[in-house]
Amino acid sequence: MTQEILAVEAAHALVAAALSASNTSIENALCVADALVGAELVGQGGHGLRRVAAYSAQARAGKVDGHAVPRLIRTRPSAIHIDAAHGFAYPAFDLAASELREAARAQGIAAAGISRSHHAGVTGLVVEALAEAGLVALMFANAPASISPWGGRTPLYGTDPIAFACPVEGGLPVVIDLSLSKVARGKIMAAKQKGEPIPEGWAFDREGNPTTDANEALAGTMVPTGDAKGTALALMVELLAAGLTGANFAYDQSSFFDAEGAPPGSGQLIIAIDPEAFGGVRAVARFAEMAQAIQQVDGARVPGAKRHELRARLKRDGIPLDSALLDEIRQIAAR
Amino acid sequence: MTQEILAVEAAHALVAAALSASNTSIENALCVADALVGAELVGQGGHGLRRVAAYSAQARAGKVDGHAVPRLIRTRPSAIHIDAAHGFAYPAFDLAASELREAARAQGIAAAGISRSHHAGVTGLVVEALAEAGLVALMFANAPASISPWGGRTPLYGTDPIAFACPVEGGLPVVIDLSLSKVARGKIMAAKQKGEPIPEGWAFDREGNPTTDANEALAGTMVPTGDAKGTALALMVELLAAGLTGANFAYDQSSFFDAEGAPPGSGQLIIAIDPEAFGGVRAVARFAEMAQAIQQVDGARVPGAKRHELRARLKRDGIPLDSALLDEIRQIAAR
Repeated sequence: MTQEILAVEAAHALVAAALSASNTSIENALCVADALVGAELVGQGGHGLRRVAAYSAQARAGKVDGHAVPRLIRTRPSAIHIDAAHGFAYPAFDLAASELREAARAQGIAAAGISRSHHAGVTGLVVEALAEAGLVALMFANAPASISPWGGRTPLYGTDPIAFACPVEGGLPVVIDLSLSKVARGKIMAAKQKGEPIPEGWAFDREGNPTTDANEALAGTMVPTGDAKGTALALMVELLAAGLTGANFAYDQSSFFDAEGAPPGSGQLIIAIDPEAFGGVRAVARFAEMAQAIQQVDGARVPGAKRHELRARLKRDGIPLDSALLDEIRQIAAR
Repeated sequence: MTQEILAVEAAHALVAAALSASNTSIENALCVADALVGAELVGQGGHGLRRVAAYSAQARAGKVDGHAVPRLIRTRPSAIHIDAAHGFAYPAFDLAASELREAARAQGIAAAGISRSHHAGVTGLVVEALAEAGLVALMFANAPASISPWGGRTPLYGTDPIAFACPVEGGLPVVIDLSLSKVARGKIMAAKQKGEPIPEGWAFDREGNPTTDANEALAGTMVPTGDAKGTALALMVELLAAGLTGANFAYDQSSFFDAEGAPPGSGQLIIAIDPEAFGGVRAVARFAEMAQAIQQVDGARVPGAKRHELRARLKRDGIPLDSALLDEIRQIAAR
């Protein structure tokens, strides 16, 4: 597999060009490019440039509305509803973050529920940006069904990420970002494409038995992280990200990976908290105390530390990307 | 082990008598009795009457202030700070719930951070009560250190529960309540008391190696649920329940089980959301849709369903309790 190294600006311009050549407004294309390049910069290639072809096909088919403008209603002083209007999720996240920055400061805590949304990408980036603005943030996002309620073998929940970030006095934010499947579904997709088996412990087949066959796994369910407990958390995310916001539950969503069917209509909930409203001026120093305590433990690292290092390096040295992937994106941009 | 069956009222009166004979106000004794009997009713005996002796000893020693009255400040329209004043946690939870019911309705979302608090008991009971009032609730609580940052062997985080509940149209609330260790620390305590080994996979010794020796386990660390991901969630709970609220982090807390040392100074964060502010009048019906979808999956059950059944049965038939435990509590009450 040959690679090319692209400067961040070049990668961004390429993604934006591919999207704007795919029935998508320039504003939305730029915003999607921010998110996909942002994913590459934190080592989450599965939510990065590999998504361009699927996004482009969906925008051309109208499964995602590339020209959508998200609409916001402040339903209560601390409650925000955003209709992503079956567009990309990222413009809705930017709108949410902008409103939450003001609302959380004024109210102490505020939340934005997003409906008729799409693939959330790296949720850690959304909470990290809020932490950089001095807020504590939590995010819950749902995705097409791949995890069964514990004890069963019918997928009702997505791999459903939970993300958290908080500011750290004198340092970079703590960022936690995890999906509730043991491994990302994209890893099984990749094994399928390569015709390779998957390790045991990743997935169950349709009958609920462990499988190492990628095709069987994709037709079955994902192993949740933490067994019954992780499964319960996936249900919690469904109820918060979709039940509360009016979005589709995982089991009513179409795929993020192809242009078939109705829009997925995913949902997200973002909660932002002003630490000063709860812990006074000391709160951000307290977060730093915990980060320092972790740094003093042999073999441990502060969640988020790795992403900060990687991003700094890739911004300086450029992003290594698969040449075949880049060719595919260039073809989309040249259409 | 001989057992007696006590009616709920008799169990409640006994606990309240034992506490009020232990340097605790009648109001606080009644409130603690609600929580401990409430724990028994949902099958959580480890947070139930087994705690009376330790609570009593701590109240007599002044490690917990049995006469404390929690104090509330509404720092912002949606932000509540409660100083539990080194009393029991439960009166602070009642105060938080009362204020949150009003604040969440008015603001859409509101949160209460509690500092200088104590053992949180069954956090599921707190969120369940809010769900019964029509709200969606999340709770995070910290506890003395027993989980190490992933990769290390120094306990910095508690077993730190996450609880969630939401109302269900025409049904009982969904209640999720889980600690982030693979098993409850109380199970290792129980094995120690009986002189029995513990199963593999529950705990590590001081060197970070797996152990089946209960004493080594108590001196070491607990295995987190979901490995690195569960450990990251335990950190998130520490940052929300203690970093944000100004409470002690797990590693600065004294034990909940004995009367030695300073007060633990634990912390909790409770978030309450009015579903109507986010999903309109349909939100509670949407929660019911998901609950019904789970009920239709062979082998699966809705989290919380078991607790509702057990509670109904114990309220009708009485609570089976260990006679030796009851004798110990009667002696405390007769002092």
